[in-house]
Amino acid sequence: MKIPEFQGMLKAKKSDCAVFYNSDSSRSSPNLFYFSGYSGLGALVIPARHNPFLIAPEMEFQRAKKSSVKKVYSMEKKRFFESIYQTIRKNKIKTGNIAIDKNNFTLNSFRHFKKQFKKSKIRDIAFDSIKLRELKTEKEIQYLKISCKYADKILQKAIRNFKSFRTESEAAAFLEYGAKKLGLELSFNPIVASGSNGSMPHHEPKNEKIKKGFCVIDFGVKYMGYCSDITRTVYIGKPSQKDKKIYSMLLKIQKDAINQVNESKKCSELYNFVNESLGKYKKYFTHGLGHGVGVEIHEMPNLTLNSKDRIKNGMLFTIEPGVYFPKKFGIRIEDTILFKNRTIPLTKTSKDLIII
Amino acid sequence: MKIPEFQGMLKAKKSDCAVFYNSDSSRSSPNLFYFSGYSGLGALVIPARHNPFLIAPEMEFQRAKKSSVKKVYSMEKKRFFESIYQTIRKNKIKTGNIAIDKNNFTLNSFRHFKKQFKKSKIRDIAFDSIKLRELKTEKEIQYLKISCKYADKILQKAIRNFKSFRTESEAAAFLEYGAKKLGLELSFNPIVASGSNGSMPHHEPKNEKIKKGFCVIDFGVKYMGYCSDITRTVYIGKPSQKDKKIYSMLLKIQKDAINQVNESKKCSELYNFVNESLGKYKKYFTHGLGHGVGVEIHEMPNLTLNSKDRIKNGMLFTIEPGVYFPKKFGIRIEDTILFKNRTIPLTKTSKDLIII
Repeated sequence: MKIPEFQGMLKAKKSDCAVFYNSDSSRSSPNLFYFSGYSGLGALVIPARHNPFLIAPEMEFQRAKKSSVKKVYSMEKKRFFESIYQTIRKNKIKTGNIAIDKNNFTLNSFRHFKKQFKKSKIRDIAFDSIKLRELKTEKEIQYLKISCKYADKILQKAIRNFKSFRTESEAAAFLEYGAKKLGLELSFNPIVASGSNGSMPHHEPKNEKIKKGFCVIDFGVKYMGYCSDITRTVYIGKPSQKDKKIYSMLLKIQKDAINQVNESKKCSELYNFVNESLGKYKKYFTHGLGHGVGVEIHEMPNLTLNSKDRIKNGMLFTIEPGVYFPKKFGIRIEDTILFKNRTIPLTKTSKDLIII
Repeated sequence: MKIPEFQGMLKAKKSDCAVFYNSDSSRSSPNLFYFSGYSGLGALVIPARHNPFLIAPEMEFQRAKKSSVKKVYSMEKKRFFESIYQTIRKNKIKTGNIAIDKNNFTLNSFRHFKKQFKKSKIRDIAFDSIKLRELKTEKEIQYLKISCKYADKILQKAIRNFKSFRTESEAAAFLEYGAKKLGLELSFNPIVASGSNGSMPHHEPKNEKIKKGFCVIDFGVKYMGYCSDITRTVYIGKPSQKDKKIYSMLLKIQKDAINQVNESKKCSELYNFVNESLGKYKKYFTHGLGHGVGVEIHEMPNLTLNSKDRIKNGMLFTIEPGVYFPKKFGIRIEDTILFKNRTIPLTKTSKDLIII
């Protein structure tokens, strides 16, 4: 995506090229994937004035060949940065000024990198790439819509089947299976947090009986590498009037917050609106209101107290207020929202309290 | 695990403390988990001469409290390294010399870190921690045995059901579901690579019909955070004599390689043995012979051409020769092996060629 825009950025910053790398199969550079569609081991070089190319080890060569980057060179995995250096030299790309992503460059990789690129000046392109990825292209919006559609479909099926799950793990496994059998990756490990576990926003599903009361289900898939994100809270058993009241309150706030979204709206204002609306419950709202989504599950904008971001055309983000009562229970309601001239919720599963 | 040993290491290196961090929910520090059992956001401080403590944001506080570290402090997520600094100061821990893991410390995090710890000397503890984790404790061996047992069980069930899978994705989803419903994480995304896809060692399962011929299935789970790793190659359809012959050759080499494992054996020798045994096929063996497993799927030792490692008591590693014929097919056979006075294969699924 956006290779010409990125090259324009490099030129403006007087960088000769950008280098992104994956040296470890368990951690992959979001920018490498964003610009190439490749997520295997290796490196992506984007020269400011020439076509980008990939450098991949023998065992990943065929996979790299299937990416959107036409030129793929072979590398010696053990001589990772040396291979990158040699390939750049062979291609006669200037290296006086190299842009890298310092959010995804470790200190030890940098030491090896600098051994090769001794004379190069290094610039950080992390923030600029994040900003570039903040506004989605038509193609990306298309992928993200499909991603949300799949998330809705699989989540709804899980809710319909919820009675048959004995444990949180079974519910999480069902969600994951629904994604995987369609060839979809997950945006993150599903959260199924029942009863008091629900008071931990990032609870990991346990292989233990689902507890009575509220149960938070947070789920998302990746379609063509693009993340969806949705949370629904269901109720196991018979909710009291108080339970229903607090759920309705949170739901109204979530809907109101979505209605507050508007072009140029400050994200911190959206956060504050929710925080104020929560009144005496605001101390139980322990995380941000939302975050951008894209090839990463957490992108720009940030919908937090101190955010400087504003809503712009082409942004895709979550709205997810929650309340967490320590050792008691938690409730969270989350949708993925597109802002494109108007506010368009992409996740559409019913938000009425479902009683299981 | 091994906190006293690690503290001894810090003292020997004249480090006052070690700091490990997770600032991003999609990437977690293996050392933070290894020493604390906690994998959420936050930081772990291990002073050379005092008890370790965790620092976690409000939303992760309860999860951190459930870890093996007794003392947990609260942090402001937006002031990540500032909170770490303040907590260390409050605990009167010296910071003249701080050990960090440079393999898991990004350039931008380091910039923020150094703003706080201006006067501290920084040492890299990456390699030492990897070496510490190379030899497993009894408790770790126990976890890893159970992990391998689960991997075997789930893989065998998948093989028994293989006829019912229409696509690679369905087979991969079945494996994953088997793990998740038991509350187990995966060591890595399962590989199901049929026909020509099998020639890519790291092929990602596709939502397309399983092809005839060899099908590589590479799978592992995490039990209590500890990884198992096993590969079997099955055959869809009727193998020719030539197919059977090449499979038998690879299987014999894999078994012979396991038999070659011995105390103090050079890992490079094991690699060379396999490479030489492959004869004219050696150019189709495009990756290492194996790798250690533990809290990470790739640990020490390395069983590669240039490895300096030797087999020692308490090591756990894979033996996984493979041959990959570009655009045609691939075969890989892999077991997780414990060396403890003798060679003990922990994965036990039959290696006879299974015809589906």
